[in-house]
Amino acid sequence: MVAALAQVSRVAVSRAFNPHASLKADKRERILRVARELNYTPDRAARALVSGRTHLIGVIVPDVYSYWESQEIDALTTALQNEGFATLLFKTRTDYSMDEQLLAYMRGFNPDSVIAFVENVKPVTLTRFLDRAVPIYVDYPMAGAPAEPEHGPLYDRLNILQHSGIDQAVALLQGYGARRIAYLSGHGKSRASAAREATLRQVLEERGFQPPILAPGDFGYETAYQATIDLFRVRGGADGVFAANDVSAFGALDALRHELGLRVPGDVKVVGFDDIAQSHWKSYNLTTVKFDLHERVRALVRLILRRLNDPQAESLVETLDTRLVVRGTVG
Amino acid sequence: MVAALAQVSRVAVSRAFNPHASLKADKRERILRVARELNYTPDRAARALVSGRTHLIGVIVPDVYSYWESQEIDALTTALQNEGFATLLFKTRTDYSMDEQLLAYMRGFNPDSVIAFVENVKPVTLTRFLDRAVPIYVDYPMAGAPAEPEHGPLYDRLNILQHSGIDQAVALLQGYGARRIAYLSGHGKSRASAAREATLRQVLEERGFQPPILAPGDFGYETAYQATIDLFRVRGGADGVFAANDVSAFGALDALRHELGLRVPGDVKVVGFDDIAQSHWKSYNLTTVKFDLHERVRALVRLILRRLNDPQAESLVETLDTRLVVRGTVG
Repeated sequence: MVAALAQVSRVAVSRAFNPHASLKADKRERILRVARELNYTPDRAARALVSGRTHLIGVIVPDVYSYWESQEIDALTTALQNEGFATLLFKTRTDYSMDEQLLAYMRGFNPDSVIAFVENVKPVTLTRFLDRAVPIYVDYPMAGAPAEPEHGPLYDRLNILQHSGIDQAVALLQGYGARRIAYLSGHGKSRASAAREATLRQVLEERGFQPPILAPGDFGYETAYQATIDLFRVRGGADGVFAANDVSAFGALDALRHELGLRVPGDVKVVGFDDIAQSHWKSYNLTTVKFDLHERVRALVRLILRRLNDPQAESLVETLDTRLVVRGTVG
Repeated sequence: MVAALAQVSRVAVSRAFNPHASLKADKRERILRVARELNYTPDRAARALVSGRTHLIGVIVPDVYSYWESQEIDALTTALQNEGFATLLFKTRTDYSMDEQLLAYMRGFNPDSVIAFVENVKPVTLTRFLDRAVPIYVDYPMAGAPAEPEHGPLYDRLNILQHSGIDQAVALLQGYGARRIAYLSGHGKSRASAAREATLRQVLEERGFQPPILAPGDFGYETAYQATIDLFRVRGGADGVFAANDVSAFGALDALRHELGLRVPGDVKVVGFDDIAQSHWKSYNLTTVKFDLHERVRALVRLILRRLNDPQAESLVETLDTRLVVRGTVG
């Protein structure tokens, strides 16, 4: 009826409701006006039963409010909306794990794809709870890590290469005379943090430094603040602190300046990881290893679309590199 | 078949998949194990066609990465998961408006409820694009504002009373001798910012102050930073800056200290609004008007559940108050 009244084909009506499909602006406007008059919307529940597509993309995160996650979810939601998908959020438990009840519940929504991290739910568990979606994992491959088993579950990958950015950071610290380097770690279970530590250890060795002094953090401000105080009051301090993420670096900076009375970068140099929007704020003005948000989101959307186009394909991989952004905390 | 093999009723199977329903832990575990062996999940698409419920809650936001929104979405997603719902995110355009195509698209997901702000999409527009959901609006009622039309669209409300918190802030500024008060505003279209300005104006008058000097912001750090420089370099400055949100207050603090060489709270006092998690970080340690996140989320969840229990009810209202949290930027 909409097609008849708007004097267009049924295909055009379907395209008008898909923001991804190309259609002349005036034609789309006419169709949507007629649809509104008739109180018509394509029902996705009904359509999903036929097409097998829900246009829902599940995203599993430990928390939405952490800077990196919130900026990623924001950019991803914009990109997915432009492609006709909606973001469906799932939160892990506070210990970062995901219980099977929530996974069963997620399966009920039958998402077209799910984006997850290995530390939250392993591929072998997640794939058991998905009907047809092939999950996407963000991963940090390390030189010398054991190869994946050949007959494991099928999943796609966004591989982040951390060596370039970390090597640039250590070269800068070296150039400014830092000798003792501390690593302020992320959450103990985090694969990202473990990969950062292993890469830093490798780079320090390549450049003739001692191994890093380890200060245990959890990606949060508070723990980083306390860990930095411990590091300097009890364990002899360091010339340079490499933090597992920018928020930890903010905690380290505030502890160094406001609690320990040290100057940054004069007495101690600090480097973060991520380059979140707050890193250029004047109180921090942080030198950090950038892991480009928009490149990352584009790569994730490409993986989703490639997989939907070819559900039977072998594991798909996108690879991104990192680089140093130099600001005021090393110099 | 799941019910038969697990030796339970069909109702128990249904309850096992609803995190909200009470069921003995061992029974739930047995049912989920059998369901997994049979590769069974209740299909929400099919169920939604019968029950008319999708268990999806739409949330319309201008951006996910702003602190207040991300903290709210995080807490809301946790609370909704506990009640058996999932959060479906929709982003407005960059000018904060929402186009009708996206609304039509949202309607296709047939959410059980939608949470929105008046500045993003008016109730009269939004309700036209919802089949059965009654939207929830977060609102800031002001004394003397015109009453709502009686025959307008039906929507529920979370009313935030701002007077108490703002009055406490101005009393504290007054006690420390501030006379010239500036208001660093939010985005021009924001009803929250307009209500904060009107309430501040009223409180200042009640306490015998001049009206506030207006500095135009947009809730963001950068604009607040520049607006504060303009205020002090061109327009004679102020003794106290009341910012429309905490992030603007951070921008003001950094501009005062790092660009203008002024001391806070010695030369200028600063007050924010929201009490986001970053407000107690040492570089800011901000005195701010708190608008309790967890109370807010509980009130939103109550509105959703009350409405689903009684779809025909008159407009439902929850009311929350604000209060001052005193830290280091006034004193």
